[in-house]
Amino acid sequence: MNGAPRLAALRGRLAEEKVDAFLVTDPVNVAYVTGFDGVFDSEPASACLVTPGAATVYTDFRYAEALKAQASSSGWSVVVVAGPLNVRVCEDVAAAGLGVLGVESSVPYGRFKYLSEHLEGRVLAADEWVERVRSVKTADELERIAAAAELADEAMAHGIALVAPGRTEREVAIEIEVHLLRAGSEGVPFPPIVAAGPNAARPHARPSDRRMGRGEPVIIDLGARVGGYCSDLTRTVVAGTADGRVRELYAATLAAQEAGLAAVRAGVAAKDADAVAREVLGARGLAEAFGHGLGHGVGLEVHELPSMGARSREVLAAGMVVTVEPGVYLPAWGGVRIEDLVAVEEGGCRLLSRAPKELAET
Amino acid sequence: MNGAPRLAALRGRLAEEKVDAFLVTDPVNVAYVTGFDGVFDSEPASACLVTPGAATVYTDFRYAEALKAQASSSGWSVVVVAGPLNVRVCEDVAAAGLGVLGVESSVPYGRFKYLSEHLEGRVLAADEWVERVRSVKTADELERIAAAAELADEAMAHGIALVAPGRTEREVAIEIEVHLLRAGSEGVPFPPIVAAGPNAARPHARPSDRRMGRGEPVIIDLGARVGGYCSDLTRTVVAGTADGRVRELYAATLAAQEAGLAAVRAGVAAKDADAVAREVLGARGLAEAFGHGLGHGVGLEVHELPSMGARSREVLAAGMVVTVEPGVYLPAWGGVRIEDLVAVEEGGCRLLSRAPKELAET
Repeated sequence: MNGAPRLAALRGRLAEEKVDAFLVTDPVNVAYVTGFDGVFDSEPASACLVTPGAATVYTDFRYAEALKAQASSSGWSVVVVAGPLNVRVCEDVAAAGLGVLGVESSVPYGRFKYLSEHLEGRVLAADEWVERVRSVKTADELERIAAAAELADEAMAHGIALVAPGRTEREVAIEIEVHLLRAGSEGVPFPPIVAAGPNAARPHARPSDRRMGRGEPVIIDLGARVGGYCSDLTRTVVAGTADGRVRELYAATLAAQEAGLAAVRAGVAAKDADAVAREVLGARGLAEAFGHGLGHGVGLEVHELPSMGARSREVLAAGMVVTVEPGVYLPAWGGVRIEDLVAVEEGGCRLLSRAPKELAET
Repeated sequence: MNGAPRLAALRGRLAEEKVDAFLVTDPVNVAYVTGFDGVFDSEPASACLVTPGAATVYTDFRYAEALKAQASSSGWSVVVVAGPLNVRVCEDVAAAGLGVLGVESSVPYGRFKYLSEHLEGRVLAADEWVERVRSVKTADELERIAAAAELADEAMAHGIALVAPGRTEREVAIEIEVHLLRAGSEGVPFPPIVAAGPNAARPHARPSDRRMGRGEPVIIDLGARVGGYCSDLTRTVVAGTADGRVRELYAATLAAQEAGLAAVRAGVAAKDADAVAREVLGARGLAEAFGHGLGHGVGLEVHELPSMGARSREVLAAGMVVTVEPGVYLPAWGGVRIEDLVAVEEGGCRLLSRAPKELAET
């Protein structure tokens, strides 16, 4: 992917904040700022140093060959370090006579302390500079996310077809993951959640060997990854036939989800979209059952900016990709969650998820 | 798993270091210190506050139900926070009149700064306190790792059987992952590496759609996870028939690996084990081709303490689990790596990997 506009955005920020150089250490941010595909993994073994006139990526032997192959045509310099990365960065910053070094506030404290001591305090922690650039997607990024959303839709259909009384959560979860891998997902951004009956009262439940009971709601939450970009999708179905309570809670959750979707557009405060969906559930006495935020940004990570909860301070902008996923959770009984992935646009939002939303009984 | 001994170890350290409370924030360390199985995921959404007399775990709504189910019989208090975790921790530390709060030096700088400002500087960053306890495994942990190693052996046999000229790296990697999932691995600790020919010169290569050429060395590096614990295994095989150069490099790597294995025992400095294997390759003019360390610890994470490289400062101890994985990498040509997982014992080490090490031609 072309990393030049990202580098330009970061350099613009350097100029605004009067910082002479910026050190990117978060592994996902390193991948993003360089724009190199398929080089980095989750190891915090690489870093980028960006100045107004230069861009250098530091890595170790394990990534050197792959990095050089992509960097040669990009304007990035590659430094392969044998010793600690911090030491070499300090040497380079000192040698270049740079004044203030910006670092990410997510940097581990130990590394911040080392840099600060060795650069005589001329280190400034910056909050979410790269993450904010990442939150607004380019056309190329939107295409990758849409492709990941399509894989998620297909895997959801595959998973729903396997739900039946007597099946275990784990059996269904494994086959969803197998389907995703064979369909072209680059691993999975998170282990698929399949949570039936009481387990469905846990928003981040792990699939268990418990057999699904007849009439239980089953929450399936899964995602795919294409070209490094994630998708995220949740549906709730019923193992067998739904009773009145399931239907009622499903209808309430769907109404909240549709209200949330209708509220999402550029210029709206994320917390206001959350409030709209929350009000629908609150009017039905389910305010306390909806214990998490309405959604979150999705991109290189499955949870990224913007957050869409009651305490969110972000304003939605065109090009952001967010989930809209209200849920109701009743301990000991179970839960319902319905989640779509959408691209924020000027007048509203564009659905990237296409999985049906009628209550499926299996 | 019984978390009581872990809590006792951490409290012992508090007493030694004259720290009144310790805040654990790393997600893996939170899972380890509590000993709760299957509650936490990689989200940094939970934390533990440990004092000489109390142990509290902070989490949000999403994990609350699962956590309460395990905490009730464990002596841990559970606090479900709706707002920022930092704020509540500061309130609790202040309310308890605690003096010095220890935090992990891996804590993001932003969080350290908040805590330090709100606790008037009475915050001390501690390096690897939990990680060092984690590096020595109990019998129960060793059993889980051995089970994960067994799954890795089986998946390796499955993967090797798929290697053939004309097959793509990605095809083999996907089927290895599918095999692992269906055999009971809890996801995969890292995406399987299948790297043929020139790609094998990249220790952390990603599987590509390139077809394997006849006679090329193919590095397969994979791991499984059982009961939360990882395994890690690498073999190098040949797509077709090996030529003299492959045989020579394979023999050199195997000799280095066997020398490394023979050097691993309690009381040996990790860097000395690395040096033994490095010397074998150096004597054959391959010192520069072996650009990474001999190995690393494996447990809840696939890379954890101790590191076993030339700059390692750790001494091996009974109960540690480490990889022994020398490799030779020749840009444009390819590479060879052979990796076993072993448990360090008093007089030597016990192999947890059983996959054959004769050079396989497929």
